[in-house]
Amino acid sequence: MPRSHRRDPDRLLPLDPTLRAIARELYRAVADAPILSPHGHVPASLLRADEPFGNPTELLVVGDHYLTRLLHADGADPHLIGMAGAVADPRETWREVARRFHLFAGTATGYWIEEELSGVFGIDTPLDAASADEIYDAVAEALSTPAFRPRALLERFRIDVLATTDDPLDDLADHALLQAQGLRVAPTFRPDAYLDPDGAAFVGRAEALLAATGHPATFAGYLDALRERRAHFVGHGAFSADHGVVEPFTIDLEPGEADRLLQRALRGESDAAENRALRGHLLLQMAGMSVEDGLVMTIHAGVRRNHSSATLRTFGPDTGHDIPLPTSFVDGLRPLLERHGLEPGLHLALFTVDETTFSRELAPLAGFYPSVYVGAPWWFLDAPDAIARFRSAVTETAGFYRGTGFIDDTRAFLSIPARHDTARRADAAYLARLVGEGRLSHDQAGRVARDLVDAVPRRAFKL
Amino acid sequence: MPRSHRRDPDRLLPLDPTLRAIARELYRAVADAPILSPHGHVPASLLRADEPFGNPTELLVVGDHYLTRLLHADGADPHLIGMAGAVADPRETWREVARRFHLFAGTATGYWIEEELSGVFGIDTPLDAASADEIYDAVAEALSTPAFRPRALLERFRIDVLATTDDPLDDLADHALLQAQGLRVAPTFRPDAYLDPDGAAFVGRAEALLAATGHPATFAGYLDALRERRAHFVGHGAFSADHGVVEPFTIDLEPGEADRLLQRALRGESDAAENRALRGHLLLQMAGMSVEDGLVMTIHAGVRRNHSSATLRTFGPDTGHDIPLPTSFVDGLRPLLERHGLEPGLHLALFTVDETTFSRELAPLAGFYPSVYVGAPWWFLDAPDAIARFRSAVTETAGFYRGTGFIDDTRAFLSIPARHDTARRADAAYLARLVGEGRLSHDQAGRVARDLVDAVPRRAFKL
Amino acid sequence: MPRSHRRDPDRLLPLDPTLRAIARELYRAVADAPILSPHGHVPASLLRADEPFGNPTELLVVGDHYLTRLLHADGADPHLIGMAGAVADPRETWREVARRFHLFAGTATGYWIEEELSGVFGIDTPLDAASADEIYDAVAEALSTPAFRPRALLERFRIDVLATTDDPLDDLADHALLQAQGLRVAPTFRPDAYLDPDGAAFVGRAEALLAATGHPATFAGYLDALRERRAHFVGHGAFSADHGVVEPFTIDLEPGEADRLLQRALRGESDAAENRALRGHLLLQMAGMSVEDGLVMTIHAGVRRNHSSATLRTFGPDTGHDIPLPTSFVDGLRPLLERHGLEPGLHLALFTVDETTFSRELAPLAGFYPSVYVGAPWWFLDAPDAIARFRSAVTETAGFYRGTGFIDDTRAFLSIPARHDTARRADAAYLARLVGEGRLSHDQAGRVARDLVDAVPRRAFKL
Repeated sequence: MPRSHRRDPDRLLPLDPTLRAIARELYRAVADAPILSPHGHVPASLLRADEPFGNPTELLVVGDHYLTRLLHADGADPHLIGMAGAVADPRETWREVARRFHLFAGTATGYWIEEELSGVFGIDTPLDAASADEIYDAVAEALSTPAFRPRALLERFRIDVLATTDDPLDDLADHALLQAQGLRVAPTFRPDAYLDPDGAAFVGRAEALLAATGHPATFAGYLDALRERRAHFVGHGAFSADHGVVEPFTIDLEPGEADRLLQRALRGESDAAENRALRGHLLLQMAGMSVEDGLVMTIHAGVRRNHSSATLRTFGPDTGHDIPLPTSFVDGLRPLLERHGLEPGLHLALFTVDETTFSRELAPLAGFYPSVYVGAPWWFLDAPDAIARFRSAVTETAGFYRGTGFIDDTRAFLSIPARHDTARRADAAYLARLVGEGRLSHDQAGRVARDLVDAVPRRAFKL
Repeated sequence: MPRSHRRDPDRLLPLDPTLRAIARELYRAVADAPILSPHGHVPASLLRADEPFGNPTELLVVGDHYLTRLLHADGADPHLIGMAGAVADPRETWREVARRFHLFAGTATGYWIEEELSGVFGIDTPLDAASADEIYDAVAEALSTPAFRPRALLERFRIDVLATTDDPLDDLADHALLQAQGLRVAPTFRPDAYLDPDGAAFVGRAEALLAATGHPATFAGYLDALRERRAHFVGHGAFSADHGVVEPFTIDLEPGEADRLLQRALRGESDAAENRALRGHLLLQMAGMSVEDGLVMTIHAGVRRNHSSATLRTFGPDTGHDIPLPTSFVDGLRPLLERHGLEPGLHLALFTVDETTFSRELAPLAGFYPSVYVGAPWWFLDAPDAIARFRSAVTETAGFYRGTGFIDDTRAFLSIPARHDTARRADAAYLARLVGEGRLSHDQAGRVARDLVDAVPRRAFKL
Repeated sequence: MPRSHRRDPDRLLPLDPTLRAIARELYRAVADAPILSPHGHVPASLLRADEPFGNPTELLVVGDHYLTRLLHADGADPHLIGMAGAVADPRETWREVARRFHLFAGTATGYWIEEELSGVFGIDTPLDAASADEIYDAVAEALSTPAFRPRALLERFRIDVLATTDDPLDDLADHALLQAQGLRVAPTFRPDAYLDPDGAAFVGRAEALLAATGHPATFAGYLDALRERRAHFVGHGAFSADHGVVEPFTIDLEPGEADRLLQRALRGESDAAENRALRGHLLLQMAGMSVEDGLVMTIHAGVRRNHSSATLRTFGPDTGHDIPLPTSFVDGLRPLLERHGLEPGLHLALFTVDETTFSRELAPLAGFYPSVYVGAPWWFLDAPDAIARFRSAVTETAGFYRGTGFIDDTRAFLSIPARHDTARRADAAYLARLVGEGRLSHDQAGRVARDLVDAVPRRAFKL
């Protein structure tokens, strides 16, 4: 590979020589620290089966909607780039990605791909049309060796905790098996489909939940059913329950009203306002259950899912057409916080893709409520400049100790180290500036850097 | 001019010596590239007539609401500073600007004025009360020479494409004449007054449109009339249709309902909600016509026009009292995107003055929909720091190839080179940082810098 | 104190050596300039009594909701940290703060505390569990000396103007006494409780106001009563009237309708919509009175007060649970600006904790309306990085001369110098960058830096 370029060891660190030296020292102290991944989407079955990855395209392209969405925007054939799932000719798909890879200049996705090729496979040749085949072959060859099976990589990546995201009715057998083998792979209770009466699958899921648990189709019975499944998750090592909502709205209803709304929803008779109220009340009830069973409550809010109906019909959800919305937490979460916000034991981590909330809402809320934690920059904001904006917006009000620590939130197993490394470098860069500006001592900054990859996520996620 | 200061040749580039060297190289490669100005407000008549500019005040002050608004805020007499148009004593007006020119320290407007005086007229003396007369005289003398006539400047500025903004009923004779003479001056179809039933002139304009085209006063006839005028523009070299809207709202109506709303609007009987629906449906129809005739659809959204009624009455529109509003595109444009967002050939460029939409909406939308392009920083955001925030907010999600490239959007002909130069310097500064941080190679950055002034606007605007 | 670290004399200035040299020169020219504090919450009684401060905890912890809120979020006992007011054992409270002081790394509050310990008391030892007692003793010893009484500090701090915030029915006897002694301590008219019919105290306050002034309980009488109290404030040296509102909403009502709404509110019969209208109309009327009597009108908008009812019940208001909201001024203030925005003499300073309004609304409004001034970064945004974002967002549109200059808005008397110093350093850093980037000359930047601490606040606040 004659055009090989080694990655800059100081990448993402500040340019000023004084700051760079400080940042480099801060980064080095945490660069090899174990990874805590308390929220993500790697399936447990991947690690249970521990089979070799199929081919470079299946591993790095198909299903990675960060990647395929920008190819799609550029006019690539959705089938060729794997938006529809399996591709006809993996090598041809890989070539198409390579031909269009200049699109990713400056993007987080491009940076991660380069990090993965370099850090995981030792390939430093820039990806383009000319290098596509040799890189494909090099990755394919690596994937055929035992060192590139999922569990070997889990160990190599130093992932101490890996959380998956799971349906409440999942039996969690894979998790039980992995845990029996000493792997800390924890399930996450994700009940969205059971809490949103506007969801197409709601009635079916709700009936399945009631049938599986044997509880009556009353609101109280429904809560008991959810409670029972949460207990199943807790019994299998879960430490958090995750909630994806369009709008962070909660409401405290009388039991009778909640029951009435549930009955109407189960009969398919409820209107949008009733569904909103039921959904908002169920979210509030989830906080109450978190107080009871200790599961950390994470809320990922403010995304219009499936913005393009045609894309949804043809390619399904999670294919790149989810778009953020203006979001506000202050009034919407107030009923939940009025009821539970001061209760010991509740941990409520708020994730946003509307960065206006960083300084306006999340830092002020987490700087007062013992229950509220500022979620790390998420999804579209999980990138070096966005992380810098996040730290700048949050820290002056809430400091470093009211956050969740970094979460990778990814399906792309191989990108986990690159994502955490990005966050560690970005945090080192921010801390170095504070030191350079006389706002933190070296000692303070060193302590914060270490805590951000260990004590902070351990506290927020009760690890 | 004894107090002359030469402009810093490295202005707007980063301070760090390493970054500055990289940025300088990137900037120099594009500093003299031809200017593509695919959206602006210079009238074609200026170039057709090619007469000498009247005097420095008429050229640089009168009608430049960027300039006059801040003088007005400072308490200057609106008549003296030309808010009402022609001024009684141009030299006295110039002196007033000079006396208050410290107000513009740090502003984009101040920077452009200095760039124009230096770059176009070779005047590097700071403008203040003491230098006002000598600068006035120097500019006036230059304006009396053939080298400062509009066409000579067009050539000197290396403006390869210049788009004007025109009323749909314009006969475009000036454009035809200029094009016959080999100048690429393209009209832009701007139908706002024909699409907004809340506009005071709506009924008159709509009737004039129908009368001019001979189509019946039905919704179908109205669309045909618009279609016919678009064809007239296409025939005269237009490549885009521009839409200024308060709210980026669209709605897909049944034809019968659209017709009913149009009839009510034409009779002056419609209410605000009906007008909103009609306006939103007409905007959606414009996207459909763009699919048909290929005109790039640009939407400039989110400005409350004529915020001060008293100013509007006394001085008219476009006199500095348009104020941005909170804006969101995601739900409002969804009907348009559901109908046309995946259709080949549609180019939809979104411009905002609410920078919260950069990372939250524009980058995610343009990073998925092949039709959506992120509009360059516009109006109040068309300045060095704002451009830096724009790049930082957009690039990590959408890269560099989903934007429109820079547009100057200006009536101030002499400011065009300064504005494009500002964007080129700001982009070089941003790219240099990415190189310095190990996120782009020198080669990648060089390619992006060149594409941003050529391939990117050519693609977005179909040049 | 063996672990003493001297504060970095260049703290908050840019790291680049070239910029740092420029910034240092700019900063030094204003570092010792007198402090103008035209808006704050230090009580006049503190200076009138001029008694020694009780103890370090009472002085620096109790009642400082910036500090106690983050301790509360971390799980500290609210009683121990003084959220409930007086503490049982001041030294034990101080130790608790010291134990948790790592929470404040990177925060504005932590920075100020360190500045106060260092700048006011000469203590440079980092505060932590180990140093808690020695620092407590050193501060306590200092407080027992005459040099640390309030008036001595006022002089040492070079505070030339200090505004307090006062109830309209305050007799202002303390102010009269202080002024008679040559101290420029001015009251500020703060009528919120008399303007918000949703407030629990409204009816009582309104009746007290009418009783005190002898005006009839009509809308006209109510206005006269307010007008009379404003005159009382003007007579006691007040130069501004301050308004805290959740929503910057105004409406221009017919007198009859205003009277009807007031009557209903006074009888407790009005609903939320009526109260909103009455409140919005009263705010507009306050602008009219400012035109008449010349009081600068300041509006602090966009905070949901008392977000936690339980905290309000137990600890009262202003105990850390006020949370910012999404805010927009453009449409809400339009009726006020339509009526008074162009009137000579009106000064309307707008303060926000939603930084999205900086470039979108405040700079555009203040860059056109002679009456509108951009309020300095406030509350959660009163910190180095936030000030940098503020300058970057505002300056390119509105320059440096449409702002209010810095306000400290604090109850924490000892933090006043630290807060103003922070702003001066942050502004020097911003100006230095503009010089380094060739956007301002050294001379221009020097003039701006000096004006920002003198001419700018003097103009905005009519000092």
